[in-house]
Amino acid sequence: MKNEEEKIRTWLKENRARGIKLLQKTVQEDSTRGNESSTQAVIIEKCRQLGLKLDIWEIGGEKLKDHPAYFCDRHSFEGNPNLVAVLKGTGGGKSLILNGHIDVVPVGDETSWTHDPFSGHIEDGKLYGRGSTDMKGGNTALLLAIESIVACGIKLKGDLIFQSVIEEESGGAGTLAAVLRGYQADGAIIPEPTNMKLFPKQQGSMWFRITVPGKAAHGGTRYEGISAIEKAVLVIGRLQQLERERNAQITDPLYEGIPIPIPINIGKIISGEWPSSVPDTATIEGRMGVAPEETMDAAQLTMESCLQELNEQDPWLSKNPLKIEWFGARWLPGSLRNDHPLMTALIDSFKEIKGEAPVIEASPWGTDGGILSNVGHTPVIVFGPGVTEMAHDANEYIVLDELFTASEIIALTILNWCEVEHAH
Amino acid sequence: MKNEEEKIRTWLKENRARGIKLLQKTVQEDSTRGNESSTQAVIIEKCRQLGLKLDIWEIGGEKLKDHPAYFCDRHSFEGNPNLVAVLKGTGGGKSLILNGHIDVVPVGDETSWTHDPFSGHIEDGKLYGRGSTDMKGGNTALLLAIESIVACGIKLKGDLIFQSVIEEESGGAGTLAAVLRGYQADGAIIPEPTNMKLFPKQQGSMWFRITVPGKAAHGGTRYEGISAIEKAVLVIGRLQQLERERNAQITDPLYEGIPIPIPINIGKIISGEWPSSVPDTATIEGRMGVAPEETMDAAQLTMESCLQELNEQDPWLSKNPLKIEWFGARWLPGSLRNDHPLMTALIDSFKEIKGEAPVIEASPWGTDGGILSNVGHTPVIVFGPGVTEMAHDANEYIVLDELFTASEIIALTILNWCEVEHAH
Repeated sequence: MKNEEEKIRTWLKENRARGIKLLQKTVQEDSTRGNESSTQAVIIEKCRQLGLKLDIWEIGGEKLKDHPAYFCDRHSFEGNPNLVAVLKGTGGGKSLILNGHIDVVPVGDETSWTHDPFSGHIEDGKLYGRGSTDMKGGNTALLLAIESIVACGIKLKGDLIFQSVIEEESGGAGTLAAVLRGYQADGAIIPEPTNMKLFPKQQGSMWFRITVPGKAAHGGTRYEGISAIEKAVLVIGRLQQLERERNAQITDPLYEGIPIPIPINIGKIISGEWPSSVPDTATIEGRMGVAPEETMDAAQLTMESCLQELNEQDPWLSKNPLKIEWFGARWLPGSLRNDHPLMTALIDSFKEIKGEAPVIEASPWGTDGGILSNVGHTPVIVFGPGVTEMAHDANEYIVLDELFTASEIIALTILNWCEVEHAH
Repeated sequence: MKNEEEKIRTWLKENRARGIKLLQKTVQEDSTRGNESSTQAVIIEKCRQLGLKLDIWEIGGEKLKDHPAYFCDRHSFEGNPNLVAVLKGTGGGKSLILNGHIDVVPVGDETSWTHDPFSGHIEDGKLYGRGSTDMKGGNTALLLAIESIVACGIKLKGDLIFQSVIEEESGGAGTLAAVLRGYQADGAIIPEPTNMKLFPKQQGSMWFRITVPGKAAHGGTRYEGISAIEKAVLVIGRLQQLERERNAQITDPLYEGIPIPIPINIGKIISGEWPSSVPDTATIEGRMGVAPEETMDAAQLTMESCLQELNEQDPWLSKNPLKIEWFGARWLPGSLRNDHPLMTALIDSFKEIKGEAPVIEASPWGTDGGILSNVGHTPVIVFGPGVTEMAHDANEYIVLDELFTASEIIALTILNWCEVEHAH
């Protein structure tokens, strides 16, 4: 094995320029929701060149849409396919899913970006652009690891199943579709931006929408109305309090040092149409974190009870109650034993490359790992390059050195997990 | 005079159905901003039938746009004209402007309306629809008053100048255009919905937009970002405090009993694009009331200082300060002496019709009266039918009896103010 490992590490060091070019190409394509096809085309072409067996399909259909883990508000997936590309093993080894999502979140306020959000600009060893960290950098690490194995002529015993999925940022319909298409394995790695930490446990999360009623009036006699914005401020205060209460109960040592283990993020508020009118409705949208061992239902209940309390305490809301919807995206929580063989394999590779033990934590966000493990019964670890803090932010970037280090660690883990078939 | 008064009162009582039909027709036309033309066409046709001298024009041009009282964010007035229709006097009497705006505010949440917002539905003596109270009801009262005079064959000495203007709800560009076109008079009545009170003083107001900066991050690690929504909540709290401070200083007896004489209304908030992201910017829009004797500049300064204080106290805002813009609409405050002859004329007519003295207050909102008095040097009283509380609200309505009472009071005031020319 040492021989193959050496070959791979050498190949990866010699082919950095190749990897950077691939990453740049994918970052320069906008793959926000509904626009995934052009980036996916770059990935498909790469996998074709590597000789992988391609499965390209537009997700959808009743089997997907009727599944209890399907939560999606997208009307059409037409033209933006999912990809699974398999490097078939010779048999006898364990299979491994390498899963990455191709969709990226919106760019936000463009004026906050120093360069164009899709520039792929490189400076001081960092590559900039929406999706560079979340998670085109991780995807590139996976593809480079596979390419190194193929290029070095190494045959694996177990199947290597590369997945480039859509819809992760909106709740995982892409990965769910892949699971329902039959892709399961003995293990999976998802290189989301963990900053090179190992996340055997992942936080679940789901989206909520709270509709706050008000009563319109002319702004000059605003005391005749009820401002939906003022009531929304009450709701925000209550959600902040709920977040504090829920996080005070988290004792899992994997969350030690995380300021807010399971955040309630208020991501959107919209209210009012006219500066001189009292707004008669406000809409708050956000994301609720779910602890790895908590159920989605239990988490929902805590928020619903909290709003119900507010409804009962406020004279206006008691007659015009808040409405809550759980819409769009949700990510199931996931949890893997610390001593699972996949953990051992990944930790060993990490130590070999980095010369030190990895940091092991519980993830601060949901990933497609919840679907792979809960629906696909595939043990999952989330581990990847990229600075967690930069995901979804302006001037998102990835440190290129980290990407190549992650790629080496993943390549070694593949050899270890899937096993190498030696010619006899 | 008693003879003419009797004729007019009788005509108005006998022609209620006519008045209701006219009001219904105008309410059934949507005249939200940019869509004023179809309602204006109904008014123009009515004025043409009455034999008034019509002046119909699309406002605009440098003279208007360069005027210091012009504040408007509308790009085009094409296709939505202003109307001034004059009943020329025989000479020797005082002239009177009867000013009403044709534009209405948006309908808001349509589901809050029992009937279609443009239904003109009549039930229990009330006519429902957006604009019924603000201020198509008042406009109808004016047109009926004029029609009664024309129909009864009464000749006035002074000119009667009826104005149906656009843009009142967005800052008065329509009335400003009429003033700049040369329309001034010895007095003016604006039948905004005062609930039959007389408002010799009008509150000014202006629109503001506050941009609140944040720092984007993934919602799961929201502690790495700064929520623009959380900072916006601070701003809202500060504006509420400023409103309390400003109103504590109001001592004008005309504002006695008004819960918030000069409100700061927060009419709009928009922040965030994605439930799972920390929003990096928030926008708050609203309307600031200006006391009748306060200047616009002084009022602006109080808000700017208050935000500046917040900028200095908050560690994030001290480096990323709030921005404030005074945009779009503004209404100058206005003030008329209590013993002005126009007040006497209107009070006398009111007493004659209602058998009691009118309530006299300062208006809780801005009107085009500020422009007529400050720019056009025309003494103004705001007085009209319609329930102030219903303006801008869902299920806006007007009590039809009040409309006809207002019409009688205004008709008598016209006779008194413009004087009747008797055949010799």
